[in-house]
Amino acid sequence: MMTKLLPNERLDDLQIRGYEIIQSPGRFCFGMDAVLLSAFANVKKHEKALDLGTGTGILPILLEAKYPGLHYTGLEIQEESADMARRSVSHNGLEERIDIVTGDIKEAASIFGAASFGVITTNPPYMIGDHGLKNQNTALYIARHEALCTLDDILRESAKLLKVKGRFYMVHRPFRLPEIMTKMCAYGIEPKRMRLVYPHIDKEPNMVLIEGMKGGNPRMQVEPPLIVYQKDGSYTEELLEMYGMNKSEHKMEE
Amino acid sequence: MMTKLLPNERLDDLQIRGYEIIQSPGRFCFGMDAVLLSAFANVKKHEKALDLGTGTGILPILLEAKYPGLHYTGLEIQEESADMARRSVSHNGLEERIDIVTGDIKEAASIFGAASFGVITTNPPYMIGDHGLKNQNTALYIARHEALCTLDDILRESAKLLKVKGRFYMVHRPFRLPEIMTKMCAYGIEPKRMRLVYPHIDKEPNMVLIEGMKGGNPRMQVEPPLIVYQKDGSYTEELLEMYGMNKSEHKMEE
Repeated sequence: MMTKLLPNERLDDLQIRGYEIIQSPGRFCFGMDAVLLSAFANVKKHEKALDLGTGTGILPILLEAKYPGLHYTGLEIQEESADMARRSVSHNGLEERIDIVTGDIKEAASIFGAASFGVITTNPPYMIGDHGLKNQNTALYIARHEALCTLDDILRESAKLLKVKGRFYMVHRPFRLPEIMTKMCAYGIEPKRMRLVYPHIDKEPNMVLIEGMKGGNPRMQVEPPLIVYQKDGSYTEELLEMYGMNKSEHKMEE
Repeated sequence: MMTKLLPNERLDDLQIRGYEIIQSPGRFCFGMDAVLLSAFANVKKHEKALDLGTGTGILPILLEAKYPGLHYTGLEIQEESADMARRSVSHNGLEERIDIVTGDIKEAASIFGAASFGVITTNPPYMIGDHGLKNQNTALYIARHEALCTLDDILRESAKLLKVKGRFYMVHRPFRLPEIMTKMCAYGIEPKRMRLVYPHIDKEPNMVLIEGMKGGNPRMQVEPPLIVYQKDGSYTEELLEMYGMNKSEHKMEE
């Protein structure tokens, strides 16, 4: 099947099930955070999952590849990104499995209805404030800064969208953890599981993966540290596995 | 100087400045959490520090040994423990540097007055609830369970006792982190720094060290993982240093 690419677009291999994704280097390209979040999350049989701020659709596509969930939806406010996501979905023949909806996170509960998902994932903008907006690439800026939606918007809508005991998975920056936990608790999405991502074993973490449960009891499991690089600068075994390059395949390449 | 020991009491070497502490194996003996908290905390010149629930006085004694603070106080509700702490203070000749006060954390602000400390430390009971009280050693039970004071009590009193921009240092269990952060924020003690203690690099953390600042701005630094044991079961270099067995001394011993 020939997939139409616009100028500057390219097809990138996702290293799983032969899936590929359309990306454009001038816009936002998915990073390690999306890959780690897809490995940290889980979508069980009969569960429907929604990704808030899906960009080019990387999370629904990776989740569909990894888990047996019933159906996946991505919500994206930027039409250009949503269009790329839709074309990636078609390119991989996933039209029956993944819907991409153009719309605003701030209105997500009215778009989809209350208690309509068992799982929500989100890789939201990490940065607070909107200074510098005029001088920057708008698509990138919206993906990185809380210009169009805040953490409060995401949690308020997620609390409405999730079924009782539904799960919320987010990747974010550790420096915002007190605010993240306080607000999750305030919106009734109890933090249940957390993993810190340390680039090196002797360095500060630069990402946090967190799972919440709507109406969950207050007790959180903190998982072993996720270390990205070995001392020699190569990826750790665990990272390679998350990127679909597992030990045995990796050894065969050598 | 001869220090009087009661039956079952013993003197333990603290590996710093020749200090020793009186402990009784039947009661609560200090653990790694106290040592790690003393290394994580800081008391600057001209600052007065208060330890809430000081037990046998391990924290004031270790803090006095490590930092140039002006004065140290330990508050303890169990008179037997407070008496042991006072005798340890005398044994080390620290009567001018450390006061041990018998009293209730729940009334700490009225005992000492508002805004009277620059630093508060606490190694509080980790466990919620009071089931099993009657069948257990009371001194141990009080040290481990929130029988006589809760996290709320500690934070409420600390918020009153601290000067503006004063620092709060606590060691606790990671499973209570959402509650810890939510309540610290609610009492105006903003979480500013956190370190997770992982027994092994591939295991879940069993302690969290957290620093808050009264009236601080919301941005937290998460520090590199603190790993306790190497693969072969021996302590890591960093742990040995915290126990006063630094690298060079350690090498000389070999």
